[in-house]
Amino acid sequence: MRTLSAVITSSTSFGHCFFHRFALRHSHKTLTSPLAPCFRRHFTPTMAAPEDSLRKALADKQSEVENQGNQVRSLKAGKAAKSEIDAAIEALNGLKLQKASIEKDLQATLSSADGSVNREVFRQAVSNTLERRLFYIKSFNIYGGVAGLYDYGPPGCAVKSNVLAFWRQHFVLEENMLEVDCPCVTPEVVLKASGHVDKFTDLMVKDEKTGTCYRADHLLKDFCNDKLQKDLNITAEKAKELKHVLAMLDDFSAEELGAKIKEYGIVSPDTKNPLSDPYPFNLMFQTSIGPSGLIPGYLRPETAQGIFVNFKDLYYYNGNKLPFAAAQIGQAFRNEISPRQGLLRVREFTLAEIEHFVDPEDKSHPKFSEVAELEFLMFPRELQMSGESAKAIRLDEAVAKGIVNNETLGYFIGRVYLFLTRLGIDKKRLRFRQHLANEMAHYAADCWDAEIESSYGWIECVGIADRSAYDLRAHSEKSGEALVAHEKFPEPREVEVLVISPVKKEIGLAFKGSQKNVVEALESMKEKEAFALKADLESKGEVDFYVCTLGKNVSIKKNMVKISKEKKKEHQRVFTPSVIEPSFGIGRIIYCLFEHSYYTRASKAGNEQLNVFAFPSTVAPIKCTVFPLVQNQKYEDIAKDISKSLTVAGISHKIDITGTSIGKRYARTDELGVPFAITVDTTSSVTIRERDSKDQIRVDVKEAASVVKEVTEGLRSWADVWATFPHHSSATADE
Amino acid sequence: MRTLSAVITSSTSFGHCFFHRFALRHSHKTLTSPLAPCFRRHFTPTMAAPEDSLRKALADKQSEVENQGNQVRSLKAGKAAKSEIDAAIEALNGLKLQKASIEKDLQATLSSADGSVNREVFRQAVSNTLERRLFYIKSFNIYGGVAGLYDYGPPGCAVKSNVLAFWRQHFVLEENMLEVDCPCVTPEVVLKASGHVDKFTDLMVKDEKTGTCYRADHLLKDFCNDKLQKDLNITAEKAKELKHVLAMLDDFSAEELGAKIKEYGIVSPDTKNPLSDPYPFNLMFQTSIGPSGLIPGYLRPETAQGIFVNFKDLYYYNGNKLPFAAAQIGQAFRNEISPRQGLLRVREFTLAEIEHFVDPEDKSHPKFSEVAELEFLMFPRELQMSGESAKAIRLDEAVAKGIVNNETLGYFIGRVYLFLTRLGIDKKRLRFRQHLANEMAHYAADCWDAEIESSYGWIECVGIADRSAYDLRAHSEKSGEALVAHEKFPEPREVEVLVISPVKKEIGLAFKGSQKNVVEALESMKEKEAFALKADLESKGEVDFYVCTLGKNVSIKKNMVKISKEKKKEHQRVFTPSVIEPSFGIGRIIYCLFEHSYYTRASKAGNEQLNVFAFPSTVAPIKCTVFPLVQNQKYEDIAKDISKSLTVAGISHKIDITGTSIGKRYARTDELGVPFAITVDTTSSVTIRERDSKDQIRVDVKEAASVVKEVTEGLRSWADVWATFPHHSSATADE
Repeated sequence: MRTLSAVITSSTSFGHCFFHRFALRHSHKTLTSPLAPCFRRHFTPTMAAPEDSLRKALADKQSEVENQGNQVRSLKAGKAAKSEIDAAIEALNGLKLQKASIEKDLQATLSSADGSVNREVFRQAVSNTLERRLFYIKSFNIYGGVAGLYDYGPPGCAVKSNVLAFWRQHFVLEENMLEVDCPCVTPEVVLKASGHVDKFTDLMVKDEKTGTCYRADHLLKDFCNDKLQKDLNITAEKAKELKHVLAMLDDFSAEELGAKIKEYGIVSPDTKNPLSDPYPFNLMFQTSIGPSGLIPGYLRPETAQGIFVNFKDLYYYNGNKLPFAAAQIGQAFRNEISPRQGLLRVREFTLAEIEHFVDPEDKSHPKFSEVAELEFLMFPRELQMSGESAKAIRLDEAVAKGIVNNETLGYFIGRVYLFLTRLGIDKKRLRFRQHLANEMAHYAADCWDAEIESSYGWIECVGIADRSAYDLRAHSEKSGEALVAHEKFPEPREVEVLVISPVKKEIGLAFKGSQKNVVEALESMKEKEAFALKADLESKGEVDFYVCTLGKNVSIKKNMVKISKEKKKEHQRVFTPSVIEPSFGIGRIIYCLFEHSYYTRASKAGNEQLNVFAFPSTVAPIKCTVFPLVQNQKYEDIAKDISKSLTVAGISHKIDITGTSIGKRYARTDELGVPFAITVDTTSSVTIRERDSKDQIRVDVKEAASVVKEVTEGLRSWADVWATFPHHSSATADE
Repeated sequence: MRTLSAVITSSTSFGHCFFHRFALRHSHKTLTSPLAPCFRRHFTPTMAAPEDSLRKALADKQSEVENQGNQVRSLKAGKAAKSEIDAAIEALNGLKLQKASIEKDLQATLSSADGSVNREVFRQAVSNTLERRLFYIKSFNIYGGVAGLYDYGPPGCAVKSNVLAFWRQHFVLEENMLEVDCPCVTPEVVLKASGHVDKFTDLMVKDEKTGTCYRADHLLKDFCNDKLQKDLNITAEKAKELKHVLAMLDDFSAEELGAKIKEYGIVSPDTKNPLSDPYPFNLMFQTSIGPSGLIPGYLRPETAQGIFVNFKDLYYYNGNKLPFAAAQIGQAFRNEISPRQGLLRVREFTLAEIEHFVDPEDKSHPKFSEVAELEFLMFPRELQMSGESAKAIRLDEAVAKGIVNNETLGYFIGRVYLFLTRLGIDKKRLRFRQHLANEMAHYAADCWDAEIESSYGWIECVGIADRSAYDLRAHSEKSGEALVAHEKFPEPREVEVLVISPVKKEIGLAFKGSQKNVVEALESMKEKEAFALKADLESKGEVDFYVCTLGKNVSIKKNMVKISKEKKKEHQRVFTPSVIEPSFGIGRIIYCLFEHSYYTRASKAGNEQLNVFAFPSTVAPIKCTVFPLVQNQKYEDIAKDISKSLTVAGISHKIDITGTSIGKRYARTDELGVPFAITVDTTSSVTIRERDSKDQIRVDVKEAASVVKEVTEGLRSWADVWATFPHHSSATADE
């Protein structure tokens, strides 16, 4: 078996992860688990207990129990005195109690290190609220649903469109990006060029009797985790081995995975039937375009290819100038083998992708200074390798020290940080993790994932990769269309170029039918090789020369080729641009945002816990509610007038004229994350309540809509409003 | 063959059109062509010339030519005098000239009535501009493209997202709709219930040798049009027949289409090979969900089903109250047999759909008064049948007279009118056409299409249908989940219900093993039948009674069943809501908007025609450009400052610091439909130019961004701004 360090430094792996094509696909939680992701806000991290020594102590105690048991048996067999036997039994029971106590400690250690129980309780609380309030719904639920497909219900859909609107404002508008909108249905040739047809696979095993499919790595992972969690009798060595397997999981080949599954005797989890060997399953949904059934197509697994194939037009649209960025928001599809993790691993999802095209010789960014001083959690490759934790690093320092490959990549890391934190992601639970060498595709210059900590662990939500010229080159080659940029020189430049002139007459005489092969082989020499040949010919007059299209050496004489360097004038440089690609999994960001925004607080009576989503106004599904305090025509009319003003101001809101108590109405809207509530309790003025502080101010009826507009659109802070208007005591508002 | 009137009054057809499931699919341009859609803005409509009398005159003249030819031949055969022969030849030539002249008139009549030449010139001018400025791009163009798939390039994508944002504001926000977001990938069971799996088809023929597929109706349509346009020798009767076929096209069955194709000898247009008989081709893209290949799925052909399957949750979310509307924006897919008409008939497109659920017994709308006084072109069934044109009708009148079925349907027609005209659709080229009885599905209460006139004719862009309870019932039946609403009575109501009590003992004695069938048949009688049986039993004592599950009559005696009516208290009414469905083809609306917004005007020098898109600010892809008048650091700095202020204000804009002449820069942005341009020509003040009037005002540098914000967001009109600020003569601005 390869060792971990060998894997980490190898760059030959060619799997794929969520955002980076053909880097590793699976989340690297297992690889980074020694670094103990803590779960700050809701759970106090427990210090990792000495699992190994407990396992050792347990094994020792087990031996003692066995020895003492033998002792008891032999005393009984030897018909020893009853008192002697009783004493031995008492000692045995004592040992058994000690063993049970160690088992309990080990159990506690395992579950506290894992934290999974607390996490699941928390996740369940969030999910219950999300599902009950229709943030999301299992798709086609009346027909039993389909794994990995979810609908956004009204509040979820509103959050999503707010997140996308903010994304457009933050990236497309502020950076003057060229946004495009391409179809989901994609002909095979495009995805053949990009490599997806051949390489976009996961390894699958089948139940040999029922045909049910499983992801091979999932089964192995579940086996190892289960063993580590629940089997208290495995040795410390075995535990180490299983942990090593978990760490290696993403790098296993089909054969290695198959061997492990056999070795551990893993069977189908549902039927206990034997499993097939692992084999690759392509994750793209396949279809056929047109009526003949002859044009194979796929649902795009990402939106990026639509941008690459349009490079030439977009470059022209940008005045044939670099750098520029194109962007696309749209659906992407991956036919997961067995979707897990709710909203995080789904079969259809919204991606927002940016392809920033840049001269590979100049990756500076004119606006880098605007993000240079940002400091946030970064997790460079070196820290991961040495087992340390992510640490706060200033962005300019990271670029200057070469931790981040270049300024443009750094700029986007900074912009992504601002985007996520402004959305409401907790910056203490956000880190930028650099890909290890074995995670990156061989052509990538550098890759960073924005990872957000959730109850499922650290989740990659944005990938930011410098993919060099790979994608444009792939499409150039396949389509025959030159996807290149030009740099016109202000003055023509004199350059030295290699000139190889085979003397066809001499070559023809010597090699007859093979003349063409020999000429081509000579012409395709690189400079170093050519001048070595030239030197050899000058010293020896004749040398052996390998012609690959003939598969053999031929003998080249001095009179057969002229090799020299000549000066030439060049007017422009033609090159394939590099691309820097920030790719956003919108659904994942939204799910993490739900978790980070959720908290509970006691009701006023103290008899129940109320749910709150602390969404910033930008993403809140509804910005404001309007309630008449009591059912009363006058108050209702005022509420309706305020509602009209809010509509004109473009503020999404809800009016609630049910007779429910105001406290209950507040609780209902807190649960939807509505930041402000207007309560009509007089005919001249109303109160405005802020969700998290529960503070209330009193505002003139006519001003109510405009105050809410100002605070929701960020033109004014709540603190400012709080300082301006008279306060209202909540006691009177029955909360 | 059925007559046209028979077809028009029949309601048995079950095809489908673009927006109304299983009403007719094809555009009804041919059916309405006698009504001569005119093409107002850019083409002067020509009065329809007497095509029939010209065809008659041509046929007569042809006979005269033939007769005279025979005359000449017989003179020659009879060796008549040369002078006599010459005179006859001269007469023949005269007749031939007269025939040629009639042919020319007929040709002119046909092409002017059709208008297709002018339309194509206009369409080409619009398309050239749209393609050159990347409003749209043929998808996957570097690989040769795929028919029916287009990308939106940067300005097109911006227009699209503006149209969608306005749609959300106009419908979702203003009407408090519940927006949802469901997957495109849909399991078969859902589309089986909706009827798409069985009925969502077009008729296709195959080239019998090459296998190339064609839409059968397209071939027949092309044949008829071609014949009518180009064959001057067909008789008036033949012309009438062909026109009749065109009118009938959408109603032809596979057999009727096949018979016509055979009768006219239509062959494969590309190879002249014979064609197969027409057969149905399902237009849904098929795929398979999950790795086993056992769950068949499709790409949704519309977004509506996602809403219907969620009805129960959405009804609950709305507090179990009716009416409420749900909405969805998303991609839909139709695997067209042979896509035509550019952006109008594509294989993937964005739909925005509303499902407004309402009590079938109360279709009033509380906000109807807000649209009641709108007056616009309506084209009710009766006007279409009597061959008249669409006419302006007030909406309240249309509802009061029953032309529009109900207030809610009327309300949505009004809201759609406001939406389209506010987007920039020319109200003179917008009509609401009611579906003829044969176009509607049998369950639909009423259907109207918002049709927009374009160079392709009148195009259905929005369908507004009262679909009664069809969809919810279909999913209730298939899923077994009751998709119903409840109306709780304020007080329980006393109702009389039919009670049928079979006396099982007697029935068992008489029919033994068939007892159950007889009991069920008795219990399932409706009131009328039951009381007829009761009366018969009372008079005759014994009657024959048909039991369908036995397939025969049995003899029922008086002592075998008790039939009565009893009083019962009911606490609520349970019913399936009706649904009113406005469905928007966003791409079609955008394409028509492009055509309606496009015009040309002479350049200042008068030597070229410049293109302009007169988009309203709401939809303009970029709201403003900023130019320094000359290349100069000071002006550039000011331009950049203004750009920053615009970004903060959320106004999309472009800064252009190239040295191009200001006139050219204006022309470039007019072509993108940018409504305002700020030109920095001093360090203290700048000019703001309005696109269509070319008027310019002078504004302080500091005010520039806020003035542009006010006019683009509609807070202030240009007229108002024009009255406030000093004017600037364009002479100084080099335009």
